[in-house]
Amino acid sequence: MVFPMKTAFRTHRRVEFHETDMAGMVHFSNFFRYMEEAEVDFLRHLGLGVVWQGKEQRFSFPRVSAACDYFIPARFEDLLEIRISIEKIGTKSVTYAHEFHRGEEVLARGEITSVCCRVLPDDRLESTEIPPEIRSKLEAAGG
Amino acid sequence: MVFPMKTAFRTHRRVEFHETDMAGMVHFSNFFRYMEEAEVDFLRHLGLGVVWQGKEQRFSFPRVSAACDYFIPARFEDLLEIRISIEKIGTKSVTYAHEFHRGEEVLARGEITSVCCRVLPDDRLESTEIPPEIRSKLEAAGG
Amino acid sequence: MVFPMKTAFRTHRRVEFHETDMAGMVHFSNFFRYMEEAEVDFLRHLGLGVVWQGKEQRFSFPRVSAACDYFIPARFEDLLEIRISIEKIGTKSVTYAHEFHRGEEVLARGEITSVCCRVLPDDRLESTEIPPEIRSKLEAAGG
Amino acid sequence: MVFPMKTAFRTHRRVEFHETDMAGMVHFSNFFRYMEEAEVDFLRHLGLGVVWQGKEQRFSFPRVSAACDYFIPARFEDLLEIRISIEKIGTKSVTYAHEFHRGEEVLARGEITSVCCRVLPDDRLESTEIPPEIRSKLEAAGG
Repeated sequence: MVFPMKTAFRTHRRVEFHETDMAGMVHFSNFFRYMEEAEVDFLRHLGLGVVWQGKEQRFSFPRVSAACDYFIPARFEDLLEIRISIEKIGTKSVTYAHEFHRGEEVLARGEITSVCCRVLPDDRLESTEIPPEIRSKLEAAGG
Repeated sequence: MVFPMKTAFRTHRRVEFHETDMAGMVHFSNFFRYMEEAEVDFLRHLGLGVVWQGKEQRFSFPRVSAACDYFIPARFEDLLEIRISIEKIGTKSVTYAHEFHRGEEVLARGEITSVCCRVLPDDRLESTEIPPEIRSKLEAAGG
Repeated sequence: MVFPMKTAFRTHRRVEFHETDMAGMVHFSNFFRYMEEAEVDFLRHLGLGVVWQGKEQRFSFPRVSAACDYFIPARFEDLLEIRISIEKIGTKSVTYAHEFHRGEEVLARGEITSVCCRVLPDDRLESTEIPPEIRSKLEAAGG
Repeated sequence: MVFPMKTAFRTHRRVEFHETDMAGMVHFSNFFRYMEEAEVDFLRHLGLGVVWQGKEQRFSFPRVSAACDYFIPARFEDLLEIRISIEKIGTKSVTYAHEFHRGEEVLARGEITSVCCRVLPDDRLESTEIPPEIRSKLEAAGG
């Protein structure tokens, strides 16, 4: 990530007490929840969702891969700014990059890849092409 | 809870790192998760579940009330013993009492009431009488 | 809770995807986290905190009791309004009542009692009287 | 990960109800908690810990990087087998690979890098060389 990417969306999140651990910092697993919240917020901003009902079909965007590098601990009551950029839009998947800022500092950088899936009647998931109306909104936002 | 009740089931749970908070103890909300885990464990032991598929109907046992009193903090790596007793079996609901032990100490006491529900086709829940085969197993265990 | 109490504070919280469970609703344990978040938000609004550093002493407000009654499930993306009122300010403890609203509906009601504690050098907690400057702010808000 | 590595440790974990989400599967963030639990279990098995008190110094093993690839959803009550292997022991850091099995299936693969740190009096962390007695135990286990 040498060349900073175009930020598609930014959102804010206050660190909650129950998100800290006995080391006095945010537990590392919670950064994945923050990333999901930011993604949901971004999609809502575009009029989209991580789960939605099509005309005859339910869709979902389960994650197939997630990663995070941690540089500086986040602490209780910190106000985090989360910047999302779209790294890649494939035929069936989207990869988001997330950057966690606290003032001037970058605390962490993460990445999540979600795959577009049809929800079958028995609740199993089948990957499918991203519908064109969703793709175009993501492309417009992600530049 | 003056008269100690008959313990219907006991199970053990090691405190995990991610369950602690910056005060260095288990976050109070996690005791409710421990209680649910113990309840699931107890029901599994009886051949039952908190969600199950009947012949033509799905059932579920959502909680309608939960409470906990905290006496002594639980810490990382503590081995907790959770003792469940059945406080009351109503027509549609069950109330469990949970006691958290660490060696000789009682750390906390909690209570959860679950209501037997039919899951309607649109996912809404409708309370219903506890089926007789489930009631009889609970009564036998809870004595 | 027949007579509605004076609301001391209200705050809002969007339900996150990771807070739901396989029954399609917010897991009951998360209402305790919402209550804590609302309490922290309320105290911050008053210039106070659930943990703070006094002149020579660290203080903390651990919970000694928590309870919640659930009436209607909360779902993903619901915008909850949480209303806090102060039920009782004792010498060493505060009891908050929390009401969860979604539009016109009351989804749940909960209660948390926190005890004012000094944090000893070895991290143990010792209950102590609520300092007068904190008491007066709580009384003014909760009146 | 073409060549399967030597498994240093294996542990088991039952999926809990509160770990599922409204898609009916384990929320992806919980795999990071499972990995931590497995790591703690592994270290405990070696007589070590993720936090420990040295003669004059407190140590800790915070994570600097975490990643997971998801192949098959895990569901409520699944019994997962988690296999840990040590990918790399550096001067100051350890990288663990985790494989999640359910019977014959591999559900997910993850990786966590932890850095050995001294806990300074003000709770800040300073990376430091892994003490020789810890290194030798890890090397013996990880082969």
